[in-house]
Amino acid sequence: MGPFHIVLVLLALGAPEAPAADRPVVRYRPTHGELRYTFGGAPPIRRIRPGTRLVSWTEDCYDGAVTRPDQFPTKVIPPGHDNPQTGPFFVEGAEPGDTLAIRIETLEPARDVGISSFFPGFGALNGTDRTAILGADLPETVWFYEVDRARRTARTRSRDGRLSWEVPLAPFLGCLGVAPSGGEVRSTVVPDNFGGNMDCPEVRAGNTVYLGVRVPGALFSFGDGHYAMGDGEIIGTAVEGAMDVTLTVDLLKGRETPWPRIENADWIMSVGAGRPLEDAARVAFKDMVAWVREKTGLAEMDAYEFVSQNARAPIAQMVDPQYTVLVRIPKNRLPVPAGR
Amino acid sequence: MGPFHIVLVLLALGAPEAPAADRPVVRYRPTHGELRYTFGGAPPIRRIRPGTRLVSWTEDCYDGAVTRPDQFPTKVIPPGHDNPQTGPFFVEGAEPGDTLAIRIETLEPARDVGISSFFPGFGALNGTDRTAILGADLPETVWFYEVDRARRTARTRSRDGRLSWEVPLAPFLGCLGVAPSGGEVRSTVVPDNFGGNMDCPEVRAGNTVYLGVRVPGALFSFGDGHYAMGDGEIIGTAVEGAMDVTLTVDLLKGRETPWPRIENADWIMSVGAGRPLEDAARVAFKDMVAWVREKTGLAEMDAYEFVSQNARAPIAQMVDPQYTVLVRIPKNRLPVPAGR
Amino acid sequence: MGPFHIVLVLLALGAPEAPAADRPVVRYRPTHGELRYTFGGAPPIRRIRPGTRLVSWTEDCYDGAVTRPDQFPTKVIPPGHDNPQTGPFFVEGAEPGDTLAIRIETLEPARDVGISSFFPGFGALNGTDRTAILGADLPETVWFYEVDRARRTARTRSRDGRLSWEVPLAPFLGCLGVAPSGGEVRSTVVPDNFGGNMDCPEVRAGNTVYLGVRVPGALFSFGDGHYAMGDGEIIGTAVEGAMDVTLTVDLLKGRETPWPRIENADWIMSVGAGRPLEDAARVAFKDMVAWVREKTGLAEMDAYEFVSQNARAPIAQMVDPQYTVLVRIPKNRLPVPAGR
Amino acid sequence: MGPFHIVLVLLALGAPEAPAADRPVVRYRPTHGELRYTFGGAPPIRRIRPGTRLVSWTEDCYDGAVTRPDQFPTKVIPPGHDNPQTGPFFVEGAEPGDTLAIRIETLEPARDVGISSFFPGFGALNGTDRTAILGADLPETVWFYEVDRARRTARTRSRDGRLSWEVPLAPFLGCLGVAPSGGEVRSTVVPDNFGGNMDCPEVRAGNTVYLGVRVPGALFSFGDGHYAMGDGEIIGTAVEGAMDVTLTVDLLKGRETPWPRIENADWIMSVGAGRPLEDAARVAFKDMVAWVREKTGLAEMDAYEFVSQNARAPIAQMVDPQYTVLVRIPKNRLPVPAGR
Repeated sequence: MGPFHIVLVLLALGAPEAPAADRPVVRYRPTHGELRYTFGGAPPIRRIRPGTRLVSWTEDCYDGAVTRPDQFPTKVIPPGHDNPQTGPFFVEGAEPGDTLAIRIETLEPARDVGISSFFPGFGALNGTDRTAILGADLPETVWFYEVDRARRTARTRSRDGRLSWEVPLAPFLGCLGVAPSGGEVRSTVVPDNFGGNMDCPEVRAGNTVYLGVRVPGALFSFGDGHYAMGDGEIIGTAVEGAMDVTLTVDLLKGRETPWPRIENADWIMSVGAGRPLEDAARVAFKDMVAWVREKTGLAEMDAYEFVSQNARAPIAQMVDPQYTVLVRIPKNRLPVPAGR
Repeated sequence: MGPFHIVLVLLALGAPEAPAADRPVVRYRPTHGELRYTFGGAPPIRRIRPGTRLVSWTEDCYDGAVTRPDQFPTKVIPPGHDNPQTGPFFVEGAEPGDTLAIRIETLEPARDVGISSFFPGFGALNGTDRTAILGADLPETVWFYEVDRARRTARTRSRDGRLSWEVPLAPFLGCLGVAPSGGEVRSTVVPDNFGGNMDCPEVRAGNTVYLGVRVPGALFSFGDGHYAMGDGEIIGTAVEGAMDVTLTVDLLKGRETPWPRIENADWIMSVGAGRPLEDAARVAFKDMVAWVREKTGLAEMDAYEFVSQNARAPIAQMVDPQYTVLVRIPKNRLPVPAGR
Repeated sequence: MGPFHIVLVLLALGAPEAPAADRPVVRYRPTHGELRYTFGGAPPIRRIRPGTRLVSWTEDCYDGAVTRPDQFPTKVIPPGHDNPQTGPFFVEGAEPGDTLAIRIETLEPARDVGISSFFPGFGALNGTDRTAILGADLPETVWFYEVDRARRTARTRSRDGRLSWEVPLAPFLGCLGVAPSGGEVRSTVVPDNFGGNMDCPEVRAGNTVYLGVRVPGALFSFGDGHYAMGDGEIIGTAVEGAMDVTLTVDLLKGRETPWPRIENADWIMSVGAGRPLEDAARVAFKDMVAWVREKTGLAEMDAYEFVSQNARAPIAQMVDPQYTVLVRIPKNRLPVPAGR
Repeated sequence: MGPFHIVLVLLALGAPEAPAADRPVVRYRPTHGELRYTFGGAPPIRRIRPGTRLVSWTEDCYDGAVTRPDQFPTKVIPPGHDNPQTGPFFVEGAEPGDTLAIRIETLEPARDVGISSFFPGFGALNGTDRTAILGADLPETVWFYEVDRARRTARTRSRDGRLSWEVPLAPFLGCLGVAPSGGEVRSTVVPDNFGGNMDCPEVRAGNTVYLGVRVPGALFSFGDGHYAMGDGEIIGTAVEGAMDVTLTVDLLKGRETPWPRIENADWIMSVGAGRPLEDAARVAFKDMVAWVREKTGLAEMDAYEFVSQNARAPIAQMVDPQYTVLVRIPKNRLPVPAGR
């Protein structure tokens, strides 16, 4: 049996999934003191077996410090306490060269209020510490959104109270990552090949995220619950909030995943991070060309053409130290043998 | 009556549209010799009155020179003959400071074959004349797609004939532009604030494109029919083909449009062009912030927040001399008076 | 005798130069009405023979409209009248595929005052029309510099008059270009492969600039005299002023020059334009790798290594619609036969 | 006496320097096992008092693993062992908010051979893991340079042995950094606000480098000796080699240094890191505007103008995960009271 048959088997299996009844369940709600502020660099908070269902919770990106609309995040959040993480979790048997398949089962807003804000020096349409300009910053501003669970919306008002708008709830995790390679420890505002602060709306319930393991035990963690967000996250935050999280963690032994991938019944998706934005896109597109080749056996030029005509490529965010772009392909368009 | 009331009127009107029966109709199919290869710099091919319905046709991006899959575009297209334009059309009464509202009524593939190709030195995942690298180019390659009008698809095969894939037809015009300001004349591979080679899938039937007039008569033209394209157009071409085009041209006097805008019943959309890709996105996002403010009276910070939570921002293309990003907002989410 | 022999001769001669006595001399000082505001698109103002010495003059970047420090450029310059050009000159016998070798003999400030200014929406450390941000612009500001011809300096004061600083005169032409290819006409604020608004300090007396001919007659022009400028031109202008210009124009038949090159007794230099800045640099570096190979016969990897260890690469400017980077190599370091 | 007085003293003194006789001297040559491969994340190898003269040595960027020209670095260097660091050193009394002033006294090549190489997937004129492209990589290649101490040059040959070239020795440290803030640990291939792999030729003997302290003790380290390098380091390496290093470490209490600064008798210099390259430049230019204001009291717009007309801004490198740009200003041009 050659490589082509193996590919077909993978296609048939899709994301691996143990029967629900068989899965060990770990329930874990971190205390505030257990929250972590880096990818890598922290000892595991729990050890779990592959196949575990994790029923958990994560604090909001403000470290839970903003509780009233008149509080400025820069005044109440301790320095370096952005995007607190639940975890890290040591996955038994995970080794560099393996892949975690993290299936997000449910994500539910854990509070009745979502909070968005503008931080001076952070955002896409203003000067930042990385796109340095002279002149005055825009003013720090906070918006509170009321969550309506029945209507699945969040609603806020303009600062002068005159106008209001509503956003459909579309919960996802801004952060999901493993410990980086090479002994690196990264801030939870950074996305990269280890996942991290991808701020990608497809890290949502129903989807499986594949992350390549870089250190023994993988040491994955998650946080930065987003109740809703537009593409680009241009003001620097989503509608942010604590989240109830259920996910299952499987281990794919001997399978490397250089950059994060996401999959569901209908789509395969690659996430690229980098600057400038075209480099983030190039990473995701190149990974998708590779993924299509793995799945179909297409030659490189054909896969390049196929992706060029079939991809969707929204900007995920362009505010973090590295930007992220998502590239996705509908599975039902993947090439088939020519005879039909 | 103040500006706020004017805004409300505009909201009520949406895209202006004369009753179909009233519109003058111009039928025009260019000869090959009438095709133009620049935005600006050519005398008008026709003068039309505002309100005209134009029933026309445009050649494919290959200047019609590629007729067999074994032909290399670089060998058969005369230099500088990319994206031939139908036009330019002189719109009577159009002056700098006005806006053209071009409603695309129908776009239909005019041939049974769509053609995609890779040009060495052009594309997003290879070295180009602008992202200059050393080493060998990828090989020039051509794919022919059979158009199935009944099933609304286009189908091609891998170069070795082993595999095939199908793309749903989603026709749009890669090029739609007016003459640039300042006496500039631009190649038809370039997008900018005058429109041009935006390669934006929303320049499609059912949508109205707004272009700011830069020279007397506007001198708009169109071309580069795309039967289908993925976001990013990463290989450098879509599934390209000649197109039957029906559009209506209205003139909005005294309304400036710094960057192209697109509108339909459900969405408002801004198109930004530039490099790096984040600058293209910034242009489109900033224009959308301005558009939302025009429509609602939101303050700048509120509009920044609103767009941040509600925008969709796909990469249109990242292969032309300037990249393009589309930012769109669903109209039904626009802020309303807070009392509800 | 074939092209190879021609190359050898050129190598031996360095920049070609006719004996001074033999050169035809054209003296031309444009009237204000003769100034041009584009590269391409204008009929020639004079026809000159190859070998001509041109004794001329060029207006400042402000179209001569700013005469007092209390004038705002945006108020007194007609729209589109930046960087007025002296020319274009039709060089007899010049055809696409040839190269102009323009030796700048002398550049002398033609006024006793140099003018620098900040234009809102233009510059490297502020929001612009291309790097679009929200919030307030920096204020339009003008500085007048007194030229001291004896000491070869220009001196100005802080806006409050409290402090002053002095810049050594280092005159160069911000603009030197030919008409673009493909029928394009470009604004005089744009640099590209045709030269244009390179804002490169090495376009100075004593240096020879090579520009590839794109249209019959080449149609070269020059302008935007800079009395002095720092790397990056970050505020958007140099110390600007009208300039007395003497240059000689030679024609190298059958020699293509894809991107501008500059040469003097000690250095070879390549100019790249583009965005992001690394793409401008890549263009210049790749051209330099090619130039070193032409001069020495090095293989590509060796030339890559040689340039990597020997280049100087200052940012020329990062404010125009495309940025420019200069890459230069000292001639006395060029590889020699290994035996020595 | 408050911080303001300290600043005045610093202005008067320039780079602080204790009399040579008074300085404690620490002699330290790491064993191979003591080398470190991150900034941050490692316990101190030595504790030193402010004012210490450190007489030391550092291994080459190849971890000392390449000893013959026929060895490929990717085959002999353990993963993650690029740019081994000597250190980290704990500086007693150093706290976040202070600044280290590291004066490099002498740098001498410690070997008779300098090594340069091309790593596939790393460099400025080829596809990389960050600027991802399709197609074949350039071939891994190694060049050995013979160091001639008398003539102060390094010489190598083309791979075919036919040609040779020589580079003047200009030794500097590619890496000099402190531990990052926020608990981050960064790879030694990364430059950022903590210094790190700046690959900046001004980190050389005679110059003082200022690094803001981010963690108690600062934990500074150095490595990546460069015998010579061109701007851009476009092939991904300099002429690399082990280095004998003497430097003195002073502590400036209560003085923050957000981005690395360098100073000598004639110049003040700011180093910016980031992507795209214009963002690295913006950081350095903005820091220089601030530094000039600190030194002279100029208003922001005046300082912007002053830097625009007086800066030199070479690209340091455009190959690492973040690029670096150096901006420097000659001290003798700094503004003076207007009366003179």
